[in-house]
Amino acid sequence: MAQTADQDPHPVVTGADDMIRALEEGGIDLCLTNPGTSEMHAVAALDRSDRMRCVLALFEGVATGAADGYFRMARRPAATLLHLGPGFANGMANLHNAKKAGSGVVNVVGDHASFHLAYNAPLTSDIAGMARTVSHWVQAAPDAAALAEAATQAVEQARIGTGRVATLIAPADATWSAGGQPIRRAAPPPRRAVPDAARIAAAAATLRRGGTSLLLLGGSFVLARAKAWAAAIAQATGCALRTPISSPRNERGAGRVEIPRVPYAGEEAIAALREVRQVVLCGARRPVSNFAFPDRSNVLTQRGCTFVELAEADDDIEATLAALADAVGVQAASAPTPVAATRMLPTGAPTPEGIARTITALLPENAVVVDEAVTTGRGFARFTADAQPHDWLQNVGGSIGYGMPVAIGAALACPDRRVLCLAGDGSAMYTEQALWTMAREALDITVVIMANRAYQILRAQLPRVGIRNPGQRSIDMLTLDRPALDWVGIARGHGVEAGHADDLEGLARQLQRGFAASGPYLVELRL
Amino acid sequence: MAQTADQDPHPVVTGADDMIRALEEGGIDLCLTNPGTSEMHAVAALDRSDRMRCVLALFEGVATGAADGYFRMARRPAATLLHLGPGFANGMANLHNAKKAGSGVVNVVGDHASFHLAYNAPLTSDIAGMARTVSHWVQAAPDAAALAEAATQAVEQARIGTGRVATLIAPADATWSAGGQPIRRAAPPPRRAVPDAARIAAAAATLRRGGTSLLLLGGSFVLARAKAWAAAIAQATGCALRTPISSPRNERGAGRVEIPRVPYAGEEAIAALREVRQVVLCGARRPVSNFAFPDRSNVLTQRGCTFVELAEADDDIEATLAALADAVGVQAASAPTPVAATRMLPTGAPTPEGIARTITALLPENAVVVDEAVTTGRGFARFTADAQPHDWLQNVGGSIGYGMPVAIGAALACPDRRVLCLAGDGSAMYTEQALWTMAREALDITVVIMANRAYQILRAQLPRVGIRNPGQRSIDMLTLDRPALDWVGIARGHGVEAGHADDLEGLARQLQRGFAASGPYLVELRL
Repeated sequence: MAQTADQDPHPVVTGADDMIRALEEGGIDLCLTNPGTSEMHAVAALDRSDRMRCVLALFEGVATGAADGYFRMARRPAATLLHLGPGFANGMANLHNAKKAGSGVVNVVGDHASFHLAYNAPLTSDIAGMARTVSHWVQAAPDAAALAEAATQAVEQARIGTGRVATLIAPADATWSAGGQPIRRAAPPPRRAVPDAARIAAAAATLRRGGTSLLLLGGSFVLARAKAWAAAIAQATGCALRTPISSPRNERGAGRVEIPRVPYAGEEAIAALREVRQVVLCGARRPVSNFAFPDRSNVLTQRGCTFVELAEADDDIEATLAALADAVGVQAASAPTPVAATRMLPTGAPTPEGIARTITALLPENAVVVDEAVTTGRGFARFTADAQPHDWLQNVGGSIGYGMPVAIGAALACPDRRVLCLAGDGSAMYTEQALWTMAREALDITVVIMANRAYQILRAQLPRVGIRNPGQRSIDMLTLDRPALDWVGIARGHGVEAGHADDLEGLARQLQRGFAASGPYLVELRL
Repeated sequence: MAQTADQDPHPVVTGADDMIRALEEGGIDLCLTNPGTSEMHAVAALDRSDRMRCVLALFEGVATGAADGYFRMARRPAATLLHLGPGFANGMANLHNAKKAGSGVVNVVGDHASFHLAYNAPLTSDIAGMARTVSHWVQAAPDAAALAEAATQAVEQARIGTGRVATLIAPADATWSAGGQPIRRAAPPPRRAVPDAARIAAAAATLRRGGTSLLLLGGSFVLARAKAWAAAIAQATGCALRTPISSPRNERGAGRVEIPRVPYAGEEAIAALREVRQVVLCGARRPVSNFAFPDRSNVLTQRGCTFVELAEADDDIEATLAALADAVGVQAASAPTPVAATRMLPTGAPTPEGIARTITALLPENAVVVDEAVTTGRGFARFTADAQPHDWLQNVGGSIGYGMPVAIGAALACPDRRVLCLAGDGSAMYTEQALWTMAREALDITVVIMANRAYQILRAQLPRVGIRNPGQRSIDMLTLDRPALDWVGIARGHGVEAGHADDLEGLARQLQRGFAASGPYLVELRL
């Protein structure tokens, strides 16, 4: 059926106005946009409102990654505004990462007008089918009257547990038709659970077995207070403590308890967990390697190791630990012994340790570090534990290209904090468009590109797949040289001031410049 | 179940070797790769073979778009090698475009080892669910023994009709386990159909009604020969001729019949089709606007217009037209009257007409033009019809960011032809990573960025959505300024030499430089 001309083409209040107002009433104050024709009525509604900040991204993966970063720091969801199925598809990789991190995101995706779908116009696609693969909740509003309620439900869904990915599909005719529906107040997020006494007791009994027991502390936010409880529990029981390979957000730095991670590399992880006979999972899952290989185990614990599932990531981790502490007779959380932080600036070649120590010496207090320094950064943790207090954000979904977008979201959430984004050159390339949004919004982000000019994580695996003498084809597929990427030029081309460093002295100078800058700054560290 | 150590970790011939050999035997000679850990055995197999060219992309949308462009020019599918669900997701927008264009593509997507899936490791995702949304055929190989046959089937599927998107999911353990299966020879593509005599007769009768009849000529490849038949049919019957709003590939230029398109803008299209009472669809679908709006019809023909479905895009369009010509008593295809091509270089401000005429004057013979010059380029067709003979490629899927990747594929398919990629600044940003692959492969591509610093197509729609005085928020969402993108810097940062032009004289100089260059060259045309 073709559109009839007997309705008002421009009602005073549209379905899109209702939708935006419902998001605002639900506490959404940021919309990361990359709209197209089918979202123009949502753009018009945002134009008429003044409660939501709108930030344009020039690629959808930047918008979705920024929503993830915003949630991690602000602990409330942002919205995205995406253009039909292909626009959503461009944002899917970072929605995958957000979902794995337990970040709440509300996606608003336009669709063709309902009566237009039958014609299979160029941009017609299975939006719901795409959305289901990376969302916890997907709903298409059938008409304008449904948009307000659907938007309120999306907000409610995004707030469940640690956070959920909720995707609302808004057909163009729903957004342009007359609105004015009442806005229902979003229900408060469901209370996060604390395990019952029996489960706490089982965990306590397990940890009392001492050194062969491991308390694995996960969740979407490893709070300094939670770690202090965990340290006290470890002191009382003799158990070991670890966080998973990756954590979405970890409060760390000088004056805070540092808990070692399960190492990323399989052999190291297996060695680190060799003595462990029982694991209490507190917001974490059983430790497995990110990938399986033919010649080693993908399960990182020893055969026969037992697991006590104390709490899931969605539960109240801090309250769980407090209850667990009580069960093992601990009265107060530990205060870590203050370390005499040396924070000396190292010099010379840019080794991973030297880079980490340089960062530690210079990191501003209360910074947010977004870590996507894939291979170079793998060992940074042990050298950065006594940096000024900071939050350290990692990629728990494994899809690279998350770093710069997440840094944008963190900077939008925390305008008074410095953001340091550590990225590999290979990983940063997936979402290089992020640089422009950093410049447009004048965000205080310092990006350090670890330019090793290779997919180093893959090169290291060549022997594992039986290639001891790689030929030119495999070398070509794993290297980023010929031509070398000029990150200083790329950054400036996107409006971001930049400089390069070849050694640790240069890195220190560049970091100081970045941390002092108003707005973004990029450092190409040539390895 | 964890992996047991009792199998050979490095068999001499793996499932991946079988898979690659089956693709090669099926005629695949190009693999566009962005691999990760789960695809390393495929990388190893490609390293051991020497029959397939491997081209690295630094973002998956570049790989899938290049496969589309390769198919359009080579008329045979290329393979892509993509990393799990998120890697596939990054390639989906251009697979959407490829599917809509009728391009054949064989995607190989790695997955976790089958025994690893149960652990829900970070990169675990619903690959098949993602793949189904943009593929005609999806199959996951259960084990190494199945890989060769699955790859052969993928090739067969990709060759059906005009071309199909076939996606093969290859679990890591299938790729690393022992192979050595026999390779079945792929069946030849099914013969493309020609309508039966009754249908031809119905179309002929319709066209004989003369000026109120339209022959709409679509298909994935608008051949010069097909247009010559169509022109003869029009001469004999008095019918009108048009091609759809967009065609995947159109052989045009001096000495070839030019058929006007259905205009993109709805009002213009409706005006252009106002007199049409019956349409013969030959490889085309009923004309509808790309988007629906509240205040105009999405159907571009008049109420009561009738349609004869002569042939679908999958049918043999040239043979259909030859049969139709016979039915209307035409003996030979038309030869267009040679035009006295002026090809004067215009001067002054870079108007759309001036840009088009400059291109017409300088376009090398037998060039391939990839058209993604969204708003600026909309009217280029009428001013470029008498350029040297060339192929003109358009985006029929509507997801922007297709231009530079498709240009890569066209250049790989046609190393002896010049490729001209016309792109908007907004559209080119989605896949700017393509520049690096152009440089790495030294492809003879000249890119012209129409830098109007806006999503101009959306700005033009503001009045349509009821915004006559746009506020700062909607302006911000639709402009690419503050900061302006420096495309010369961006290109050089990716290893591509570049220059800018502010007027038509400058554009001519830059185009001449680009067409004479060995390897890629980018022109930022500041509008």
